[in-house]
Amino acid sequence: MIDFAFSRRYTSPEKEQVPQMRLANEILEGNIRAAAKLIRYVEDGAPDAVEELKKLYFHTGKSYIIGITGAPGSGKSTLIDVLIDSFRKRNKTVGVIVIDPSSPFSGGAILGDRIRMQRHATDQGVFIRSLATRGWLGGLSKATIDVIHIMDALGKDIILVETVGVGQAEVAIMNFVHTATVVLMPGSGDWVQTLKAGILEIADLLVINKADMKGVYELEAELKAMLQMKDYPRGVWKPKIVLTEAINDKGTEELIKGIYEHREFLVTTGKYDTRVRQSNKQELLEVLKGSLIDAVFQKVNKNDYVEKVIDDLVNRRKDPYSAVSEIINKLTEGK
Amino acid sequence: MIDFAFSRRYTSPEKEQVPQMRLANEILEGNIRAAAKLIRYVEDGAPDAVEELKKLYFHTGKSYIIGITGAPGSGKSTLIDVLIDSFRKRNKTVGVIVIDPSSPFSGGAILGDRIRMQRHATDQGVFIRSLATRGWLGGLSKATIDVIHIMDALGKDIILVETVGVGQAEVAIMNFVHTATVVLMPGSGDWVQTLKAGILEIADLLVINKADMKGVYELEAELKAMLQMKDYPRGVWKPKIVLTEAINDKGTEELIKGIYEHREFLVTTGKYDTRVRQSNKQELLEVLKGSLIDAVFQKVNKNDYVEKVIDDLVNRRKDPYSAVSEIINKLTEGK
Repeated sequence: MIDFAFSRRYTSPEKEQVPQMRLANEILEGNIRAAAKLIRYVEDGAPDAVEELKKLYFHTGKSYIIGITGAPGSGKSTLIDVLIDSFRKRNKTVGVIVIDPSSPFSGGAILGDRIRMQRHATDQGVFIRSLATRGWLGGLSKATIDVIHIMDALGKDIILVETVGVGQAEVAIMNFVHTATVVLMPGSGDWVQTLKAGILEIADLLVINKADMKGVYELEAELKAMLQMKDYPRGVWKPKIVLTEAINDKGTEELIKGIYEHREFLVTTGKYDTRVRQSNKQELLEVLKGSLIDAVFQKVNKNDYVEKVIDDLVNRRKDPYSAVSEIINKLTEGK
Repeated sequence: MIDFAFSRRYTSPEKEQVPQMRLANEILEGNIRAAAKLIRYVEDGAPDAVEELKKLYFHTGKSYIIGITGAPGSGKSTLIDVLIDSFRKRNKTVGVIVIDPSSPFSGGAILGDRIRMQRHATDQGVFIRSLATRGWLGGLSKATIDVIHIMDALGKDIILVETVGVGQAEVAIMNFVHTATVVLMPGSGDWVQTLKAGILEIADLLVINKADMKGVYELEAELKAMLQMKDYPRGVWKPKIVLTEAINDKGTEELIKGIYEHREFLVTTGKYDTRVRQSNKQELLEVLKGSLIDAVFQKVNKNDYVEKVIDDLVNRRKDPYSAVSEIINKLTEGK
């Protein structure tokens, strides 16, 4: 159900004449401004966005999605900058989604090194968007999938998704990519220490960036030792280590080669389909979570029922688990 | 509904003789080992935990909860270490929950500076737990509330919750605290830059730690200028700036004074009740989100219905929004 008072804010008079599916059609024709607009709607949680996303959905699933995650300062943005260059030289169009680490605080500040990426702004084959989600129920991962779909429908061959690999929601986004790249740097101490232990579980490619710094061989040796300790039977991808100096455009070709190798592996082993299925399932769950809460409040919240439940919680007359059981019973009884 | 096969893993023979509410009762008697056990169940998502949490809930709401967030390396752990000392000198018992930034990767590695905190391990009045949530549906914030309740029921006067203020879920946890402290440090460049813009929205106290470093007065002046630009009418709390050198235990008393002032403000203006109500509402939503998904899969997933929906999504025969509408209709029709 659309809240018209709210959606009107986003509806220009011109748009009202062709009320439905206008943005979606424009995006499918490759209109970058339309894509930027729909992304803004997604960020703002505008209800209009859903109808457009529905239409786009049937034209998605064609892009190859690459995740880039790592600690702050590991040089992810510079790496993406040189990756854009390399993919463009291969005549691939590129979409970039930067999950803004500052978003919960600031609603989207721009880091210094993002500006570097903007040198591609005049290239029609490159579309860069920094994603800042507002509010807490909306969900960072849901918004990210929506923007992936938009860039996919826009016709981008490659979509790069950058997150700071620190937050739970930010790491979870790596579940939606085809190739997950974890960026490390020598001598970053604690961060590498804490990341190392579990890093192999999500990384398809391990990039040691700033490979001109001291400690690179120690880090490489450590990662190699970790890989040797784990068992990689035939048919299981063994994370590949790549050394880069993104700032000097060194190692980029090896990284691209690694990405292509991993994609080849996914396709030939049938694991590509498994990943796609998994990310579709997670998207369904994300949409479900959001819609179910709405459905509850629409169906159940007669006579301020939910407010009364919260009263009971505040005064410890009821516990939240029993309260939720009652709400679900009300919902499934159709009351 | 409890999955017995699963819950048995967590049920010792001894416990089976007194099957219900054993852990909860022990926690209410101040048994730290029982609390540690229940926290482990919460982390593992063990279904047994819910019955114990239900019982505990009626004994909670007594602790004062203080959030400590900030960029990596800003010295949050050292600050907590000296705060523990100061609260103990005031004869307050203290619980500490460290949301482990590495949890999505490693399932809970221990950072070097955590070890410092462990010097309080022999003090019965201090209870420190590092929280690493596994898996992606479980939810970091839900687990954090559960652990807050457990420490509350255990009788801790003060509960300190440390998060790395980077991830969306991690920042959202600040919604559950009474006093939110944001830790900054001079010269941390990009991080401060990005955090600054929106920091005032969540911070009750702005701590400039490592105040012996270069750039402290510039940072203080900047924060002051930001505060001056905003309007704080009577009855609205203006974030307080406190300078600390946690490593040398300097400024700790000013910080504690700031915390007490903020608590006084909340209580005298009635805003304490508003905050409590808000966090109860968010807890209800968290429990709802989890339980609704379970309810869907129990009610709707006959004959692998959900798997078929995912098939339709993968093959773009259906979009996720329409799929979710169908699922919700099935649910509310009681089918």
